[in-house]
Amino acid sequence: MIKINQNFLKLKASYLFVDIAQRVVAFQKANPDRRVIKLGIGDVTEPLPEAVLSAFHAGVDEMADRATFRGYGPEQGYPFLRERIALTDFQQRGADISADEIFLSDGSKCDTGNFQELFSLEAKVAVPDPVYPVYVDTNVMGGRTGPYRDGRYEGLVYLECRPDNGYIPDLPEESVDLIYLCFPNNPTGVMATREQLRQFVDLARREKAIILYDAAYCAFIRDESLPHSIYEIPGAREVAIEFRSLSKNAGFTGTRCAYTVVPKGVTAADEEGNEVELHHLWMSRQSRKFNGLSYPVQRAASAVYTEDGQKQVRALTDFYLNNAKLIRRNILRLGFDCVGGDNSPYIWVNMERDSWTAFDLLLNEAGVVSTPGDGFGKCGKGHIRLSAFNSYENVEAAMERIARVL
Amino acid sequence: MIKINQNFLKLKASYLFVDIAQRVVAFQKANPDRRVIKLGIGDVTEPLPEAVLSAFHAGVDEMADRATFRGYGPEQGYPFLRERIALTDFQQRGADISADEIFLSDGSKCDTGNFQELFSLEAKVAVPDPVYPVYVDTNVMGGRTGPYRDGRYEGLVYLECRPDNGYIPDLPEESVDLIYLCFPNNPTGVMATREQLRQFVDLARREKAIILYDAAYCAFIRDESLPHSIYEIPGAREVAIEFRSLSKNAGFTGTRCAYTVVPKGVTAADEEGNEVELHHLWMSRQSRKFNGLSYPVQRAASAVYTEDGQKQVRALTDFYLNNAKLIRRNILRLGFDCVGGDNSPYIWVNMERDSWTAFDLLLNEAGVVSTPGDGFGKCGKGHIRLSAFNSYENVEAAMERIARVL
Repeated sequence: MIKINQNFLKLKASYLFVDIAQRVVAFQKANPDRRVIKLGIGDVTEPLPEAVLSAFHAGVDEMADRATFRGYGPEQGYPFLRERIALTDFQQRGADISADEIFLSDGSKCDTGNFQELFSLEAKVAVPDPVYPVYVDTNVMGGRTGPYRDGRYEGLVYLECRPDNGYIPDLPEESVDLIYLCFPNNPTGVMATREQLRQFVDLARREKAIILYDAAYCAFIRDESLPHSIYEIPGAREVAIEFRSLSKNAGFTGTRCAYTVVPKGVTAADEEGNEVELHHLWMSRQSRKFNGLSYPVQRAASAVYTEDGQKQVRALTDFYLNNAKLIRRNILRLGFDCVGGDNSPYIWVNMERDSWTAFDLLLNEAGVVSTPGDGFGKCGKGHIRLSAFNSYENVEAAMERIARVL
Repeated sequence: MIKINQNFLKLKASYLFVDIAQRVVAFQKANPDRRVIKLGIGDVTEPLPEAVLSAFHAGVDEMADRATFRGYGPEQGYPFLRERIALTDFQQRGADISADEIFLSDGSKCDTGNFQELFSLEAKVAVPDPVYPVYVDTNVMGGRTGPYRDGRYEGLVYLECRPDNGYIPDLPEESVDLIYLCFPNNPTGVMATREQLRQFVDLARREKAIILYDAAYCAFIRDESLPHSIYEIPGAREVAIEFRSLSKNAGFTGTRCAYTVVPKGVTAADEEGNEVELHHLWMSRQSRKFNGLSYPVQRAASAVYTEDGQKQVRALTDFYLNNAKLIRRNILRLGFDCVGGDNSPYIWVNMERDSWTAFDLLLNEAGVVSTPGDGFGKCGKGHIRLSAFNSYENVEAAMERIARVL
C-alpha cells in the first residue's frame, strides 16, 4: 500500500492568503454595498508596458509561420534574453555575472521553492521572521523540519526582524548551512545596506554556508547607495544564489517570467568532502524537471531590457512608489511607527495590537484589506503589511478611510 | 559546511539528447555541405493553429488595459480553460472528470517530474523499459533508488517492453506502490488496449498502488476502440493520475501548456494508516511551489477546445500521422520489424544491431538523425526511434536516403 510524504502533514492547515480571501468574501456578502479597497496581496494592477506588449505580439506572430516557429527551447532560456539580463541587471552595475549563469523560469516562487532540492536533508536552514511563507513551507515538505509548534517549525533557525533591530536580522548565533534573505524585504519593505549584506556574505564564506537571496523587489530601490544585487558585495559570487522576477517591476504576475543566478564557483560538499558546483546541479535539475519558459513570453521579457522598456518599467515602479509614499506619510501622521515604502512597495506598520484584530478593524470599519503580520511569522505579531499595488485614487481613498477609524 | 543532495550524483553523467546533439554537431562540422534531416527529438515543426494564434493575441491585448489586465491567477488555472478541458477531453468521451480535478501547468515534464514529491521515499517504483527518462531521473534525485549499475538503477522495478510481448509490459511480479505508464508510448509508439489497461487498473486497486498515466500523445489515436484516457477504464478514478499536454497535438512545445488530472478519491496512506487525498496534497504542493500558467497562454489554449480549434488540431495530428505512416511503410518494406506510427507519431524499429551503431550509420551515411533506443533503457538495445515531426518532403527524402544505406 502506497504511503504519502508524511512531511506534507506538518504544514500548517491554512494558507495565509486563503484565510484573508475568506474573510473578505464574508465581509462583502454581509455588506454588498461597501466597496472594498485591497492593499493586501502584492499583486500589480497596471497594464504591461507598451514595449512589452509589442514584443509579446511579435513573439506570437513568429509562432504563426513555419520559418520562425519555435518548439522546445533551451531549458535555461534563450541567449537573447539572458544576455540582456546579464548586461543590464548586473554588468552595468558592476556585478560580475555572465549570461550563462542565468536560468530563466516561470516564477521566483518556483525557483525559491525548488532550489532547496539541491541540498542534503541535514542542512541547517535559517529564515527571517517575518518571512515569505514559500521558503519555509518548501523546506517543511522537503523534510528539513520537525513539527509546527507554537508558531514555529522545529529545526529551523529564525532570524528575528523586530523594531529594536530596525527589522534587519542579526547574524545567526548558531552555525547554519542555508540562509534565506530577501531585500527589499517582503513583508517589511526594509532594505539592507551594503555593510549589513557584507556581514552575511562574510559569515557565509567563513562557515561555507549558502545565501539564497531574493531580490524580487530590487527595481523599487531609489537610494543609489543601496545594493540592487547581492553580487555588488565582494565575495558574494562564491556563496550566493540570487532570485529575480519581472512580476513586480514589469507587471508580469499574470504573464510569468523570473530568473535565478547561479554563479559558477558556488559549491557545496558531497559525502566525501569534494566540492560540487551548484551551477551544475541546478542545470541537472532544470533539464530534468523543466521545459523552458514560453517563447513569446521570453520575447516579451526581452523588451523590458530595451531603452524604451527600461523607461516604462521605471515609470511603473515610480507610480507604485508614489502610492507607497502616500501610505507611509499618512501612517506616520496617524502616529504609528512604520518601515518600508521608500525603496519598496510595502509598508510594515506597527499597530501595537493583535494583527488579526487590526486586520478585522480595517476591513470591517474602513473596508480596506491589509495583510496581518503574524501570517508571516511570530515577529509579525502586532504588525500589518500595506501594499502600494493599486491606483493612486484607491490608495488615497483607503488612507482617508483608515484615518477615520484609527 | 553545507552538503549537497547526494542522490544527484547517482544520475548517469550524460543526458541522451545532449549526446545526440553533440554527434550531430560533429557530423555537420565534418560535412558542412550535407543537409541533415532530423527525425530524432519529438519536437513539433508546424505553426500554432489559427484559432490558437487569434486567442493568444487577444489574451495579450487584455494585458494592455487596466480593466482587463490579469495579475496572479489561480495556481491551478482559470476555470474557463479547465471547464472546456473537462468537457471535451473527458466527459464527452464518457470519462467522469470534473473541472476542479484538473490542474493546469507549464509542462508535463514538470508535472510527471514533480508528482513523486507527494509520496514516501520508501515507495516501490515501477517504470517501463524503455522509458521517458524523466520518470526515472526524478525518482533518482528524490532518493528512491540505489546506484546506477549495468544500465539500471537499483531499487526500481523495470517493466520490460520487448518484441515478444508486443512491447506492452506484463504486470510486475513483485509488489509495487507507484506505476508509471505512458500510452501511446514514448518511445515505442505502441498503444495499450482497454483490456491491457484494465489489468493494470485492477492490479493497482488490489494492491492499493497508484498509476501515473502519461497520455501526452493521445490525440494521435485513430483506432476508436482504444482508450484515450485511463479514466475510460472502470475503477481508474480511484487509483490513477493522468498527465496531458498540448505540446504534441496543438504544437505547444515552445508555448507551454499541460495539465494533470487528480481525481478526488485517489488516496495514499499516512503513517497511521489514514487515507489522505492526493488531490489535497497536489493542491498544497502547487499552491506553494507554482504561481499559475501565463494568462495569455491559457487564453490561447482555450481556443484548442473551440470547434475551429478541434478541427485544426485534428488536421495537425493528421499531418504528422501521415508522415508516420510513410515511415512505417518504408521501414517494413526494407524488411525491419517495427511498431507504432499508426496511433502515434513515433516508430520503434528493431534494427537487430547495436542502437548507437544504427544511429551512427543513419547519421553518417544517410544524414538522418534518429534516437538510439538504448538511451531509453536496456530493452531499447537494438532499436531506434524515428519521429514523424517534420515536413512531409523531409520525411520522404529521409526515407529514400535510409533505403539506400540499409
